[in-house]
Amino acid sequence: MSQNSRLNQQLSFILEADKLKQVLRQTYTTTKDRHENSSEHSWHIALMAIILHEHSNYSDINLFKVVKMLLIHDIVEIDAGDTFLYDTQAQKTKLENETKAAKRIFNLLPKDQAADLQNLWREFEDNKTPTAQFANALDRLQPIINNYYTKGKAWQQNNVKKHQIKTSNTAIAKGAPQLWEYATELIEKATKQGILME
Amino acid sequence: MSQNSRLNQQLSFILEADKLKQVLRQTYTTTKDRHENSSEHSWHIALMAIILHEHSNYSDINLFKVVKMLLIHDIVEIDAGDTFLYDTQAQKTKLENETKAAKRIFNLLPKDQAADLQNLWREFEDNKTPTAQFANALDRLQPIINNYYTKGKAWQQNNVKKHQIKTSNTAIAKGAPQLWEYATELIEKATKQGILME
Repeated sequence: MSQNSRLNQQLSFILEADKLKQVLRQTYTTTKDRHENSSEHSWHIALMAIILHEHSNYSDINLFKVVKMLLIHDIVEIDAGDTFLYDTQAQKTKLENETKAAKRIFNLLPKDQAADLQNLWREFEDNKTPTAQFANALDRLQPIINNYYTKGKAWQQNNVKKHQIKTSNTAIAKGAPQLWEYATELIEKATKQGILME
Repeated sequence: MSQNSRLNQQLSFILEADKLKQVLRQTYTTTKDRHENSSEHSWHIALMAIILHEHSNYSDINLFKVVKMLLIHDIVEIDAGDTFLYDTQAQKTKLENETKAAKRIFNLLPKDQAADLQNLWREFEDNKTPTAQFANALDRLQPIINNYYTKGKAWQQNNVKKHQIKTSNTAIAKGAPQLWEYATELIEKATKQGILME
């Protein structure tokens, strides 16, 4: 394959990636009354990885790999859409839809890069390695922060209760126990303030 | 300083960073008629770094450092706003405003991290190291791609001419000559199509 067609493949992926800016999440941004999108969310948690990596449960995480993982983890949503964590019905078909999406979108890239990002995405989804567990912890922590600082609006709109947040976010405890302590504090405060229902 | 107040400082920075999602740029997203914001842009170019690093002009760039740099390079805009590349008046006060912003925002972090990100931001702005030159090349390339694929709307609205794009984006040629070749092709095509004025 000529060098030029390799670059063209890379650029077609980069153009495709622009669509992630339109995939809306349930979560709101803290300073304007609007839903955040998955590209903003990806940026935010990649930044969080850089700032918070000392709180990982493992000393042997590869921080650059965490950041790469977080930058690409939601790209499948261009085809599959964002699946709300507390939508148990949609969660059932999520992996199937996203696997199909991963195949189409990552394969816009040259083969070596497509395989690399597919593996990285799969590692994130499997959530078994220390790297993936820390990445997943951040992916779960950020919406709790944003929900707390937007007076629980997305929780209320989706009828999410305290026990659901506690049972659905054990990924934070696994990847970063100290951050789970902090998340638990926010959840308790939110309950006391009446912005999250028991 | 207790561990807890260190974490609190980190989290106050992370909450502050959420504001970057509201800083609008002149550039439009390719699939909806809206301006992109600086957090989306930062995500997009960090992803571009991962995909395009083989086209850097230097073999010794530190890719993780490029990605970190791109993730934090626009955070100063929370206070200073986005300065349009072709707004020569605003460019004069840009550095002063952004330096003040960097001081306030990065200093929300624990001292060691504040110093680290300040230095990284400064290195990006100085644009002297291979790492910074590649990061700057991507920061300039992405709006050319988005402008081309949105029929030059932001160029037309701001009365930007072909020669301005050519002279204001030599950073791309410096950091990634092959990507500058590609950008030049887009600029020529845009001129032929009449979406960019000579």
